[in-house]
Amino acid sequence: MPTIDPAALSLEQKARILTGRDHTTSHPVREADVPSIVLVDGPHGVRPPQTAADHLGINESLPATCFPPAVAVGSSWDPEVAAQVGEAVAREARTYGIDVVLGPGVNIKRSPLCGRNFEYYSEDPLLSGVLAGAHVRAMQSAGVGASLKHFAANNQENDRVHVSADVDERTLREIYFPAFERVVTDAKPATVMCSYNRINGVFAAENRWLLTEVLRDEWGFDGLVISDWGAVHDRVAALTAGMDLAMPMDWGVGEAAVLAAVGAGELDESVVDRSVRRILALAAKATGAEATSSGTTEDFDVDAHHALARQLAAECAVLLKNDGGTLPLAADARIAVIGAFATAPRYQGGGSSHINATRTDAALDAIRGLASSPDAVRFAQGFTLKCTDEALREEAVAAAREADVAVVFAGLAEADESEGYDRETIDLPAAQVEVIRAVAAEARRTVVVLSNGGVVSLEGWHDDVDAILEGWLLGQAGGGALADLLFGAANPSGRLAESIPFRLADNPSYLNFPGELGHVRYGEGVMVGYRHYTSIALPVRYPFGHGLSYTTFATDQLEATLTGDDTAEVAVTVTNTGTRAGKHVVQVYVATSAGPVRRPARELRAFTKVALEPGESRRVAFTLDRRAFAYYNVEQSGWAVAGGEYTIQIADNAVDVTAEAVLTLPGDAPETQPLTIESSLGEWLAHPVVGPELTARLSTAAPAPKDEEEAEENARLLRMAAPMPMSQFFLYAPLSDDDRNHLLTLADASAPS
Amino acid sequence: MPTIDPAALSLEQKARILTGRDHTTSHPVREADVPSIVLVDGPHGVRPPQTAADHLGINESLPATCFPPAVAVGSSWDPEVAAQVGEAVAREARTYGIDVVLGPGVNIKRSPLCGRNFEYYSEDPLLSGVLAGAHVRAMQSAGVGASLKHFAANNQENDRVHVSADVDERTLREIYFPAFERVVTDAKPATVMCSYNRINGVFAAENRWLLTEVLRDEWGFDGLVISDWGAVHDRVAALTAGMDLAMPMDWGVGEAAVLAAVGAGELDESVVDRSVRRILALAAKATGAEATSSGTTEDFDVDAHHALARQLAAECAVLLKNDGGTLPLAADARIAVIGAFATAPRYQGGGSSHINATRTDAALDAIRGLASSPDAVRFAQGFTLKCTDEALREEAVAAAREADVAVVFAGLAEADESEGYDRETIDLPAAQVEVIRAVAAEARRTVVVLSNGGVVSLEGWHDDVDAILEGWLLGQAGGGALADLLFGAANPSGRLAESIPFRLADNPSYLNFPGELGHVRYGEGVMVGYRHYTSIALPVRYPFGHGLSYTTFATDQLEATLTGDDTAEVAVTVTNTGTRAGKHVVQVYVATSAGPVRRPARELRAFTKVALEPGESRRVAFTLDRRAFAYYNVEQSGWAVAGGEYTIQIADNAVDVTAEAVLTLPGDAPETQPLTIESSLGEWLAHPVVGPELTARLSTAAPAPKDEEEAEENARLLRMAAPMPMSQFFLYAPLSDDDRNHLLTLADASAPS
Repeated sequence: MPTIDPAALSLEQKARILTGRDHTTSHPVREADVPSIVLVDGPHGVRPPQTAADHLGINESLPATCFPPAVAVGSSWDPEVAAQVGEAVAREARTYGIDVVLGPGVNIKRSPLCGRNFEYYSEDPLLSGVLAGAHVRAMQSAGVGASLKHFAANNQENDRVHVSADVDERTLREIYFPAFERVVTDAKPATVMCSYNRINGVFAAENRWLLTEVLRDEWGFDGLVISDWGAVHDRVAALTAGMDLAMPMDWGVGEAAVLAAVGAGELDESVVDRSVRRILALAAKATGAEATSSGTTEDFDVDAHHALARQLAAECAVLLKNDGGTLPLAADARIAVIGAFATAPRYQGGGSSHINATRTDAALDAIRGLASSPDAVRFAQGFTLKCTDEALREEAVAAAREADVAVVFAGLAEADESEGYDRETIDLPAAQVEVIRAVAAEARRTVVVLSNGGVVSLEGWHDDVDAILEGWLLGQAGGGALADLLFGAANPSGRLAESIPFRLADNPSYLNFPGELGHVRYGEGVMVGYRHYTSIALPVRYPFGHGLSYTTFATDQLEATLTGDDTAEVAVTVTNTGTRAGKHVVQVYVATSAGPVRRPARELRAFTKVALEPGESRRVAFTLDRRAFAYYNVEQSGWAVAGGEYTIQIADNAVDVTAEAVLTLPGDAPETQPLTIESSLGEWLAHPVVGPELTARLSTAAPAPKDEEEAEENARLLRMAAPMPMSQFFLYAPLSDDDRNHLLTLADASAPS
Repeated sequence: MPTIDPAALSLEQKARILTGRDHTTSHPVREADVPSIVLVDGPHGVRPPQTAADHLGINESLPATCFPPAVAVGSSWDPEVAAQVGEAVAREARTYGIDVVLGPGVNIKRSPLCGRNFEYYSEDPLLSGVLAGAHVRAMQSAGVGASLKHFAANNQENDRVHVSADVDERTLREIYFPAFERVVTDAKPATVMCSYNRINGVFAAENRWLLTEVLRDEWGFDGLVISDWGAVHDRVAALTAGMDLAMPMDWGVGEAAVLAAVGAGELDESVVDRSVRRILALAAKATGAEATSSGTTEDFDVDAHHALARQLAAECAVLLKNDGGTLPLAADARIAVIGAFATAPRYQGGGSSHINATRTDAALDAIRGLASSPDAVRFAQGFTLKCTDEALREEAVAAAREADVAVVFAGLAEADESEGYDRETIDLPAAQVEVIRAVAAEARRTVVVLSNGGVVSLEGWHDDVDAILEGWLLGQAGGGALADLLFGAANPSGRLAESIPFRLADNPSYLNFPGELGHVRYGEGVMVGYRHYTSIALPVRYPFGHGLSYTTFATDQLEATLTGDDTAEVAVTVTNTGTRAGKHVVQVYVATSAGPVRRPARELRAFTKVALEPGESRRVAFTLDRRAFAYYNVEQSGWAVAGGEYTIQIADNAVDVTAEAVLTLPGDAPETQPLTIESSLGEWLAHPVVGPELTARLSTAAPAPKDEEEAEENARLLRMAAPMPMSQFFLYAPLSDDDRNHLLTLADASAPS
């Protein structure tokens, strides 16, 4: 369908299509053959509404496969996993006549408390951006548009519709923007969704700097900006800022406001046309809600998608601890399976991404399916989600006593974390901690399997158990995947996409989260997650990037070579040194203290996941581009590379570096600043022409130091005076008017013409 | 002398006196009998220049007594000590014909690295304000004006002439302003000195909000605002902001600018008159530089002032550790005195406050003077300030071996800390740590005496030694005072005015200090010093408020009583439970989590120092005013008291609470906000009239939950939706147009008229 020119539409028609028709579709313009665009929640599955009239949008949606949510995909460290999720979701979306699936979300996990962390990938922007980019590319290649969200600095749920994220530009540019930037520039999502919150006082929906200057002018975004549902407060201001399509319907309020503003001459019709053109461009690709397929699960392969969900989930779980080779379980082991989550799996989070799954795997069933003797698997509920139950606990302990190994399925209940509100603690419920400790005290071996969307503390029981498998939320086939991992049918290869601290209070946002009186101060700046912990050398329980395998790996023969002033090639050999096939994530960090800004101790700059047979070696290479070395310079409003040493670190995680090499970069050519009377004494002294003359005149004016002590004192005074603007130093300097005038003339003359 | 009316002066005369004549005086107007005002550096002594032509202002000044600097006075926790310093300094100032002594400085010790921390009192604003207030009152009662400095948020030296302190208003109001506010309102200083730096981008000197709205309109300041030396960049902008007298001379630049601006009609002459009037008011009290006394030390009692300096210094040192009653020393002990600082005392800091002391006490001499057998005191230099010296160290160890006790005088050299630049570490020089450890390994008992202006780390040697006496910088008689304390001629009574952390990286400003590219983010907000450590339960080596004595104290029988809605009386009995006379500092903290802002775990709200004979008890009472319970509410632009529980804690320091009592405050009457469509769903539901109607209509529209699980899910959804503005909830709610219109009408009708 060719794109319609806005000129073919009346002002009324144009004003109308700038705001949604209902909760999931845009207005069609039948007279001009403009179809409706269907936009439906995602992103790890689709949520087609049962009826178009589902105004609440929170009723049970039509069935779809619930693939692993972003928290799990993040831990896969594998863009292929993200791509397979994106592609499969697109297949289901096409079945339901969906044009745009809302997602993925690439907000940074600033605090472990954020209620929506399960929908986000990581505390690191590179990892988030690479995974989301793969998801978007795959989904869009399959013919369904993505909606990259929530742009920007929407890092909490409490007060999200009002709070101002007060955050400096370097931090936005280095931490909160790069995942958006990478996806926009590399994967070209059909739409970007603005967030509810304010950024430095201005609502995202009305933030022209954000939606136009950064997103379009700098990053070249040419798609459609849509609003988070209900995020638009002032339709005209939003339109002017570059917010094209306001969702959902608003009872005609926005349409009327646009018409009135154009009528009053307060809004140029070209601004209307600009957004209309973008809506029409997307509508031209829309199948239109009216022309969908049957809209039932019969149109996609439910079994195949469930099997895929199981296979992908196994790539995501993270083996945190495995003392004494407790895992994998022997197929003939007597196993006590304990915990309500083994039969009623927790596999997704609450809110707009909540999928009506086609089916679910319970881990208990899957374990019985894999055990050589299903009768050797005993189940005890252990706890309820509400309170301590001594009888259940005793029953679980008794089961553990008679088993070779106890596997406790613990985690958070659905109500503990959700879109819409944040958590107040990272503790596991006390009743579950009691069961874990009681079981561990009696069992021969104890394994804990966790299901949780946000980080939970391991303290109080970590040292009591032999193995911990962090399953996060693994989607509808998570139960099967966990069984595969427990028995070694799959080899764990997930790595933490976020740090697990010893204490919530160790998190750098702790005292600044979730803010107060409408403002949240991003006081930690760029020092988010592992950047904080490593920069102040604060130990964590498990660092970002950590994850064990049933085999072992070595990385060596690191070579790092500059390929230009600010680019490099890095190569390293990775070897499977164990006895099972497995996957290793090679993590490349760059560490530097170069430049005028505080750099994190190290930053992830490249990674790849490598599958290796036992004994197999492979050489893997990485290209580090300029951004791998750059910081955002707010004075220059751009990325800068400082001259100095950069250490390339190959690491198993953000703490454990296995090999490193130093590169010396020349840095960007310095901007030559002309000397003025407001330049500092230090700058004057350092100037090639004026400096020596100033030194000479000062030496003439002041008596030579009479001894070493006085010379030292003079040096100290000079250090104290160096930052003074020259205007101020002249007040103190033993210089004549002649001296001053001569020096000022010299400074003027040496300014770049 | 009566005040001159500005109308008696020509515009030229007025423009001239708005800027200094030279480094220490304002312009006189001889024709109008307006004398010059003489303003000279302080504040723990005076720095009269040797000649009026001392343009550098950094030559050796005329002799004066160097009293304990603020770092020491802060540790006294005794306003009487501060008052005695202020009064004595005023006596010497009068001798030298000085009208205004520059100081005291009440900036908060945000980072232990600040090079000028020795000139400031504390990390706590109450302690700073009470001590500075006593200093100012005493000085001004003796006829010399004070200059309260550096206003404001000047908490570092690096880049101080340019850096913008980016800090939110609550933090300014609760942490960085209160000491200024207290001194201004209670002690009425003759002048306030604006700082060099910018605050949220605006130079203090040009900051009308700071210098006029806050300082004058809110706090009622009616004195003179002067600039830090060279802090004015734009004389006209500064004048408009309320910056009266620019110091020092500026070669006529400011005068010309003012004349030009008035001439061009850009500056109203009334603005000139306003500042001129204030200058004339102060000049009316000035003795005038031309009419001074002889200006020699013969005009004040040098011996008496030196003795006073020794007595006051003994109140300031802090006994950090005293295992096994190592201190006080027996008069007949064989003592190895080790360390260069025992003979060449470090007793003041570098920069504008550097006094040309009338004399200095070396600790070694004073120790020999107090020892019953001076020959039993052996000295070894131990180290140099430059590098490790093995021979000196071995000599010290040998001396220690033969003694009953080794006393190591360690600390920072003068060049290690100064006005003008910050430190980069809090470590003691490695050579000194080596000597301490080597001595401690061989000595029977080891005492370390520290001389340092900023906090030094005790790690690496703390556990090796038996006693630590933190002397800070004690002024010219510090050597004698330290000897008094070591032998028990004086009983230590100092308490830490700042936390001593285990690691520099534990400090909350660590990653945000000293800022970058012209900005320093006060990311920790109000969580400065002990407020941070206690709020995240991070252990420190020694907490704020800590200090030992040669006797022991008990505090009990706490009574706390409300005397109004937001005021209370607190009384406690303090008893000397030991065998020596001594002084205890009773510290009253308030702890609360009431209100919509994050409160520190506890905050110092009152204190008093009590002298008690052995066995003596005294009942001490405190009045807690509204501010003891209030937080600054940025939405209301004022102080607010939240309803809730407030725990009154009597503590030995910021960590060790000895008694507590809970008060329940009603809180301020809530401001009734009218419901609007932008109010949240939660606010609508909570409204006494509209809430029940909304609930009823929602219940009618939605089917009743079919089971407990669905009821719980509904509750979760409601929690998720509660923060939504009603405008947004209406998009989702199963309500008819009639429902909506009815509810909106009801909301309008129930608004306060």
